[in-house]
Formats: sequence, C-alpha cells, structure tokens
Amino acid sequence: MVERCTSPIVLLCLFSFSALTLAFSPCPLTGLPLVRNISEIPQDNYGRAGLSHMTVAGSLLHGMKEVEVWLQTFSPGTHTPIHRHSCEEVFIVLKGSGTLYLASDSHGRYPGKPQEHFIFPNSTFHIPVNDAHQLWNTNEHEDLQVLVIISRPPVKVYVLLFMFHTLLTS
Amino acid sequence: MVERCTSPIVLLCLFSFSALTLAFSPCPLTGLPLVRNISEIPQDNYGRAGLSHMTVAGSLLHGMKEVEVWLQTFSPGTHTPIHRHSCEEVFIVLKGSGTLYLASDSHGRYPGKPQEHFIFPNSTFHIPVNDAHQLWNTNEHEDLQVLVIISRPPVKVYVLLFMFHTLLTS
Repeated sequence: MVERCTSPIVLLCLFSFSALTLAFSPCPLTGLPLVRNISEIPQDNYGRAGLSHMTVAGSLLHGMKEVEVWLQTFSPGTHTPIHRHSCEEVFIVLKGSGTLYLASDSHGRYPGKPQEHFIFPNSTFHIPVNDAHQLWNTNEHEDLQVLVIISRPPVKVYVLLFMFHTLLTS
Repeated sequence: MVERCTSPIVLLCLFSFSALTLAFSPCPLTGLPLVRNISEIPQDNYGRAGLSHMTVAGSLLHGMKEVEVWLQTFSPGTHTPIHRHSCEEVFIVLKGSGTLYLASDSHGRYPGKPQEHFIFPNSTFHIPVNDAHQLWNTNEHEDLQVLVIISRPPVKVYVLLFMFHTLLTS
C-alpha cells in the first residue's frame, strides 16, 4: 500500500489518469457504508453447529471480485469438513488453537494420511490451491477464531466424503 | 471455507480428483514453515518514517499468486502517499483510529476533494479498484494498526504527486 513507484510510469500515469481509471472503473456500491463495524456484521453458521461465520468483505454483499475476507469462530471440538478449492486461502489465527490437517498427497485420488500442523494465536498459514485440508478446534477449553482470506470469490468448495481421522487411526 | 457444495459436481469431482488437482498443482514451497508466528515476521518501513510493514503472506516470500496480506502500523501523524492501484484492497483496523481520504472523482485527471471517512478499531473497508486514496493516522496518541489484503500481487502502486490536504484547505 505504501510502496513507492519510482519508474517513469508514475508521471505517465498522471497524464493518462483519466483513461486508466475509465479502463478500471470501480465495482458498483451496494448501498452499505464504506466503513463498517465488524462487530455489527451478521453471523451465520451454514447449518454447522459450533460455527460462526461473518463475511467481512464479500462478493455478494460488497461487490468484491478478486478477494473475500471472512471471520470464523469454531467452538471446542468443531471442525470444517475435509475440503479443497481452486483458490488461494490464507488464515490468521486471532485466538484459540487447533490443528490443521493438510493432505500429504493431493495429486492422488485420496488425500492420504495428512500432515498435522499445530496452529496457535497470532499464527498464519496458507493452503496451496486445491490441496485437501481440514481445520479442527482441538482445544477443549477455548473457541478458535480465524480470519480467512480467499481469492476468486465466490468460493466453490469440494467436500471430500471420507474423514482424515479414520486415516490417522488406521 | 465451510460452505458445502450440494451439487452433483461433488461426486464428479471425487472421481476426477487426480486430473483436477494436476490441473491446479500448488505453488512451490519456499522453504519457510507452513505455520508461521506473525510476531517473528521481519518488519520494514520502505524508507518511510513511522511505518512498520510486515508481509504476512506474500508473492515473493510465500509464493502467493492471487492474494497478499500485510500488517502495517502507522505512528501518530504518519500516512500513506495518495496512491491508487489496479487491484482490490481490503483493510481491517486492528487498533488505533484515523482517517481514510478517498477520491470523490477518480475518473478525472485529478482526484478532486476527497471523501473523509473516520476509521476505528474493529472497522473494515475496501478501496474500489483504481480509486485514489490515502490513509492517515490522525490520532495523536496511538499507533494505527491495519491488516491489509490485496489481490493481484505484487502490487504496483501509482503515487499521485499532489496532496489531498491542499484540496481540503483550498
């Protein structure tokens, strides 16, 4: 945001400002205020007990076309399905802890025994495009709250029908 | 992340899992651990006094191709240049407060007298693609810390050579 362009394109850009901005006109506003209080954003659980989902910036609500930002809270013991998607995904753990299961082989028909990664407050990680993964709140005493950033909204999630834990215990 | 795909494409996807994942093979890893402690990420100020910039997930460091996430802190009175970029940008204010100046007319040769938006802790906003904008920490007593999400990394920033405040006081 604060990097400085030192190339001649800066001056060129100023003189061609009008043409450039017409070429990249902003998305239409949706009537919502530009600055929004996150604590006032409606929550949903998509029918999954123990989940709270907020769309901080989204394609349908805010006209985002390239990125989407969610705030999700998982109660102790709850988790996502094993899933994958053909978009980039970045997580920031705001509070709580848990386990990320990441397919050790996303190129086969089955993801195989997953890698287990401990996630903790103020940690960040990203999921490689199309790698099967699952997030668990394995902390019995605290909610797991994560900020989630995805590309290419709206996300299309492919849910895998088997469970990592059966692989872990087999 | 936890939305469930209910269409037949789920089963189709499972049977064609191998082909699909080969078509979207993940970015190469950069040797950094998958889960990183944000408090251990190096900071830079890009030569701007009062700025602290961290790349939480980036194109050069982590192989991101579609989104990039920064953590930036502005000391009291500091600000970004007036700038614009042809990517989406989402802000989340983690602490502090300030003012967002957003060009009232990004389609002209000059951005014109900007809209002023008060930003506060736990607020979020996004910048329309190619709209000229500037972020100021107008709080004399506290740092302004924001999480910044951009699309299409690495960002190319066009810095405008005039200042909003001259428009505000003219």
